[in-house]
Amino acid sequence: MGGVVPHIADRPPTVPGTKGDERWRVRRTAEDADRLAETESVFALSNGWIGWRGTLDEGEPYGMPGTYLNGFHERRELSYPEEGYAFPQLSDTVISAPNATLIRLWVGGERLDLRTGTIRVHDRVLDLRAGVVERHTGWESPGGPAVRVHSVRLVALPRRAVAAVRWTVEALDAPVDVRICSDALANERVPERSDDPRAASVIHDPLTAEYRRVDGPDGVLVHRTERSAQRVAVAVAHEVETPDGFASAVDETPDRLRLALDGTLRPGDRVRVTKFAAYECEPVDGSDPTPLADLVVAEARDARAEGFDALLAAQRAAVDAAWAVADVELDGDDELQQAIRFAVFHLIQAGRPDGDRTIPAKGLTGNGYDGHMLWDTEGYVLPVLTYLAPDVARSALRWRHAHLTEARERAAELRLTGATSPWRTIGGRECSGYWPAATAGLHVNADIADAVLRYVAATGDEGFLAETGLELLVETARLWRGYGHFGDDGDFHLHGVTGPDEYTALVDDNVFTNLVARRNLRGAADAAERHPEVAARLGVDPAEVAGWRAAAGAVHVPYDGKRGVHQQSAGFTGLPEWDFANTSDDDYPLLLHFPYLELYRKQVVKQADLVLAMQRCPGEFTADEKARNVAYYEARTVRDSSLSASPQAVLAAEVGHLDLAYDLFAESVLQDLADLGDKTADGLHLASLAGAWLALVQGFGGLRDDRGVLSFDPRLPTAIRRLAFCLRWHGHRLSVTLTAGEARYELPDAGPDATVELWHHGEHIYLDGGSAVTRPMPAIPDPGPEPPSPPGRRAGRRP
Amino acid sequence: MGGVVPHIADRPPTVPGTKGDERWRVRRTAEDADRLAETESVFALSNGWIGWRGTLDEGEPYGMPGTYLNGFHERRELSYPEEGYAFPQLSDTVISAPNATLIRLWVGGERLDLRTGTIRVHDRVLDLRAGVVERHTGWESPGGPAVRVHSVRLVALPRRAVAAVRWTVEALDAPVDVRICSDALANERVPERSDDPRAASVIHDPLTAEYRRVDGPDGVLVHRTERSAQRVAVAVAHEVETPDGFASAVDETPDRLRLALDGTLRPGDRVRVTKFAAYECEPVDGSDPTPLADLVVAEARDARAEGFDALLAAQRAAVDAAWAVADVELDGDDELQQAIRFAVFHLIQAGRPDGDRTIPAKGLTGNGYDGHMLWDTEGYVLPVLTYLAPDVARSALRWRHAHLTEARERAAELRLTGATSPWRTIGGRECSGYWPAATAGLHVNADIADAVLRYVAATGDEGFLAETGLELLVETARLWRGYGHFGDDGDFHLHGVTGPDEYTALVDDNVFTNLVARRNLRGAADAAERHPEVAARLGVDPAEVAGWRAAAGAVHVPYDGKRGVHQQSAGFTGLPEWDFANTSDDDYPLLLHFPYLELYRKQVVKQADLVLAMQRCPGEFTADEKARNVAYYEARTVRDSSLSASPQAVLAAEVGHLDLAYDLFAESVLQDLADLGDKTADGLHLASLAGAWLALVQGFGGLRDDRGVLSFDPRLPTAIRRLAFCLRWHGHRLSVTLTAGEARYELPDAGPDATVELWHHGEHIYLDGGSAVTRPMPAIPDPGPEPPSPPGRRAGRRP
Repeated sequence: MGGVVPHIADRPPTVPGTKGDERWRVRRTAEDADRLAETESVFALSNGWIGWRGTLDEGEPYGMPGTYLNGFHERRELSYPEEGYAFPQLSDTVISAPNATLIRLWVGGERLDLRTGTIRVHDRVLDLRAGVVERHTGWESPGGPAVRVHSVRLVALPRRAVAAVRWTVEALDAPVDVRICSDALANERVPERSDDPRAASVIHDPLTAEYRRVDGPDGVLVHRTERSAQRVAVAVAHEVETPDGFASAVDETPDRLRLALDGTLRPGDRVRVTKFAAYECEPVDGSDPTPLADLVVAEARDARAEGFDALLAAQRAAVDAAWAVADVELDGDDELQQAIRFAVFHLIQAGRPDGDRTIPAKGLTGNGYDGHMLWDTEGYVLPVLTYLAPDVARSALRWRHAHLTEARERAAELRLTGATSPWRTIGGRECSGYWPAATAGLHVNADIADAVLRYVAATGDEGFLAETGLELLVETARLWRGYGHFGDDGDFHLHGVTGPDEYTALVDDNVFTNLVARRNLRGAADAAERHPEVAARLGVDPAEVAGWRAAAGAVHVPYDGKRGVHQQSAGFTGLPEWDFANTSDDDYPLLLHFPYLELYRKQVVKQADLVLAMQRCPGEFTADEKARNVAYYEARTVRDSSLSASPQAVLAAEVGHLDLAYDLFAESVLQDLADLGDKTADGLHLASLAGAWLALVQGFGGLRDDRGVLSFDPRLPTAIRRLAFCLRWHGHRLSVTLTAGEARYELPDAGPDATVELWHHGEHIYLDGGSAVTRPMPAIPDPGPEPPSPPGRRAGRRP
Repeated sequence: MGGVVPHIADRPPTVPGTKGDERWRVRRTAEDADRLAETESVFALSNGWIGWRGTLDEGEPYGMPGTYLNGFHERRELSYPEEGYAFPQLSDTVISAPNATLIRLWVGGERLDLRTGTIRVHDRVLDLRAGVVERHTGWESPGGPAVRVHSVRLVALPRRAVAAVRWTVEALDAPVDVRICSDALANERVPERSDDPRAASVIHDPLTAEYRRVDGPDGVLVHRTERSAQRVAVAVAHEVETPDGFASAVDETPDRLRLALDGTLRPGDRVRVTKFAAYECEPVDGSDPTPLADLVVAEARDARAEGFDALLAAQRAAVDAAWAVADVELDGDDELQQAIRFAVFHLIQAGRPDGDRTIPAKGLTGNGYDGHMLWDTEGYVLPVLTYLAPDVARSALRWRHAHLTEARERAAELRLTGATSPWRTIGGRECSGYWPAATAGLHVNADIADAVLRYVAATGDEGFLAETGLELLVETARLWRGYGHFGDDGDFHLHGVTGPDEYTALVDDNVFTNLVARRNLRGAADAAERHPEVAARLGVDPAEVAGWRAAAGAVHVPYDGKRGVHQQSAGFTGLPEWDFANTSDDDYPLLLHFPYLELYRKQVVKQADLVLAMQRCPGEFTADEKARNVAYYEARTVRDSSLSASPQAVLAAEVGHLDLAYDLFAESVLQDLADLGDKTADGLHLASLAGAWLALVQGFGGLRDDRGVLSFDPRLPTAIRRLAFCLRWHGHRLSVTLTAGEARYELPDAGPDATVELWHHGEHIYLDGGSAVTRPMPAIPDPGPEPPSPPGRRAGRRP
């Protein structure tokens, strides 16, 4: 980038609301120019349907441009050096829809490109209250003339198909000739990617032009994919203000619509381009593309008719409504206050309540993991959304239900019973190319069941349970019942699975898997008995239910009596220890420096597994067991996965190691803002961001909900003076405010007849809508010294 | 093929020796035309350096043409859907050297092609005494004229670089115009292959022309490979006899040398073309190709100077010398008598005593497994060659030693100690693309050590041990010592390995692996103490030796006390049973119909594993344990691998189930002649053929040699009236002849001072060169009813 010359003052944001409060906004300046791709992820906007990465309006330089539509993808062939039965032959890969963010600028013939000329100011802000990204740039072109560019970009939360940008340019010092091109561009060039297995594959020119039309400054492009046979349409509608004397022209090619403006800009004059974009997609199915084109044209024009200011206001209202439930106030650490709001903002904008859509691992913020959704969604994201936006959680679970056919087919192909959902997918079919870490990760099915049970417990939505949830519970219970077997010891065993920890694989009796399978089996049995007619339609009879209960009751839980700890899986505590003394800092992440042959057979844990079992199924362990298990596994967990810090934080808090818990929370919540894993460029780690909320609410709030009732055992680390958060519970908004001295529970929106039952540190409380309840925070027993982490792997200490 | 009209009588073979004795020859006629590729494998000729598949002289139709040179290969990229650390990025693939077998014929303008015209007779014979393939064809061309074609083909055992064919055509009924083209052809077209993971990949046009030259009817072609940077040269020297009036012409292109003969053939006349080919290869290294060209030209011309009849005689002498040791007489079953000679013939011609060359899984008979060598070589083939052709076994072990550098590098890459040899390779580097079945199959290292120990025990070749064997023993012992660990129980454990059975993977304490590792550790310790100076040069000190002995002494051997059987690996007998009742005949081989997820976690065994442990380490098990183990594993072993029948036969014989053993032996020995696995087209299963010899000699001969002394516990099934075989032991030829009544031991070539110590059914015998020793065959105790096999999977019963 050119040098930074703070010649003109930053203007105050033009969007009302945040006024420079860094706890409500994330800011990047020219100094962050070397982290373009990371910034694009951080500034990504989404409404659960459209995802616009935070690229510059002018398109270049870029890190990884991306315009994503939820579920829009291409398929590519997988090839294996050695084939195996039921190895997936095709994989889904997220691809970009046409990019309608682009507004390019030429100043005196020089293209605006921050790598050239001189930057007077460059300031971009993700405004967490307004739900927009705002940008101010003052730039001297290499030829001398200087301009100021300002833009506001939004992806409309209340209007599924719509995103918009308002862009302004002014001459600063002298009259200048400008050329402005507002583009919608398909098959935008993208950079090649690394060999890292966690990155995305790249398909070049994935879109084939099917149809296009221009009408004055507006236009529409329709394209299709080859193998996934999806059609995508983008329409743009422009609103242009120029000084007199500007010429306007429209240009179209199969892959590009362009509105070009040419003229001379004098100081004090400005050009303002407001672009309203609408996106839809549909299966091709041999159909005529024009209806879809007409639809998006109408959507874009409707948005223009409403006006950008109205979109901004509606956006603000939608965000305000979300924050009313979702805001977390964390007094005592402004950086983490900002970070938790950043985390929650991205969670909220990742999904939608309408339609049956899930949430990929990166949301719609990047193409990491090929844009796939993984078990993170049910394992980390939905438990949070169940409390903050239950309709969005329901939508994601309906998506799983809509793909039960593929899951049943996959189970049949694998010669298993019931249904088994894919480890990673966009379209619903298994896309993993390494079965020991994927197909063998059967716990994804119990994670889905768990998300169903939690959603129903939190909402009381028995209609959903009957229509959707029960079938998911039944088919997953059938999977477990058929997969497991009763051993010589009379216990029910699950052999040859892979648990959450990817540094072990194909193990017997993984405690996490076994316990979530138990919960799955019992949950299915309970639900079938609550909805007997639906169950009967699904072919469930009392004998089958009895079989589920028998298996659940006999689930084996391996325990090492000598060491007094649970075994992550059978025999784990007898494996060789990892040689941490001869492992250097450069050896992390271990998976890039050691073969699975070494990792799998030793006591080294990539990510919480037994600890996650204690988080997910807290009632299965005594307090003493938890304390011993936390100490044992803390010493062996290297956190090479961003999924790990959160459950470790929750359990560290539960057993009383509050400073450790706080540092783990910080690691979880700063995963992307601080780019701790150097992978934020590929998109945000939504599970880690969700995990940060869990670390606060389950860890310091002490929330437990696995038995269908709310209980809180709050305890605050010294760094947090006050922690306030809300939950939705059976339609109510429950507000919890914690300080060192007391916990305060309230139903701020409820009438006096409303009642919520909860537990506070073992005390049963009936909270009604009339008044808040406060209780003292009990002293936490001294847990003794903090358990050691592997050398160099403790979470960083907060200043 | 055209219709078969036995119009003219088959002529007697022109090569002396076998005279139609089907116990010494393998015959294929026009009726076998639908099994071309299989026949090409069965009729493959080799001298351990050159391999010529048994294609037709005229080249078409073909199944899979192949001209192989030991070690000659190209490399290709491997790609993985999900990469992992230390996954091999390149794989070796066998490719054909130029094909010099081709002699094409046009009869009245119609090309000789057995798919057209009318076949009067078509008869091809692999002559096991002469070491040649002979062919007689009487063919009426579509236009009417009939000819007789005769050829004899050999790959010279005594002359490494030389192969030759003598080919004759005669007119049968009327004068006919013929055109004869004798070709040497590079980059011959090969068919695409199937998706079966056991088949080969195909690289088209792998050879780049570097140099060519013609000189009268002779010529030379030199080509190179791109990635493996190998140069291959083939020279041909012709000897031509024609009636008067034939024209001859030479034609050359970068990929082809052609000698063309044109003329009119009258009944009673003949054209005879004798072609002497010579092959060499070398690394390219930027060097001049002409010296290699000159070398092969000289070799081809030397062979022509010697003459084809002299080559035939020398071939016969070499084969006779081999048979003097290697022949097995099996009275009572002519089909199996033929089959065991076929098996031994292919073993003998697969290797060479000179040079450091190993033997691929298919020898040089086909491109299955990409032409790779696997652990089959040390595990099955070398134990036989150690007794029949010890110099060849030594050569193969020297090849392993020559690639210790790569094995050390691989161990370092895997962060292991010592050296770990590749699971599959041509050039010496790991080429497997599925690590759970390959990299984790560490037992290959102990198989190498075992082959070293057996070779030294059988030959007393302490020079080899000091120069070559000790380093192999030391580096493999270092691998085990570093890989294993002492558990809570004080035992030495090996976790996360894959044993021989590929229907389990990544298991703990595989008994086979643990026991061969023990033998490896002890063998290294013993050898280091016998050669202390060499050991010291290798950095071995007494403490290291003590460490090996401590580990060996503590090796864990999992045993199920309740069931009274050993566990193939820890916990195996507690795994779910396979549902054989719901497995149909069409479900085999299981690996093509079930995922590893199912196979790995259940008690289903692809191939002998615990049974192989009992064969390899018989002293580690009591007789009762063996009987119980045989019964237990017979019921769970489906023999989806051709490596399985032989060890099962050996142990079934040992525990007294002689009929079962005989049927298993039959399956092993008929693997290719009967194409039992439908894979003979890809090349012969050398390990199964070697296993057939082991089934006879270890099974019915009762040979055990694991303690460095020979012991025999012979017992014959009723189907074998007499079994005679020989072994080389410390330079002597030991002859063993078994009948129902007695066993006869003799040193037929030794003087009276020679002595060999052996055991016969527990009796210590000193055999000297003067006279034979006979002992009665004791009655075998009734072992009770034969143990059941999985439904439909018992070895077929011999008629």
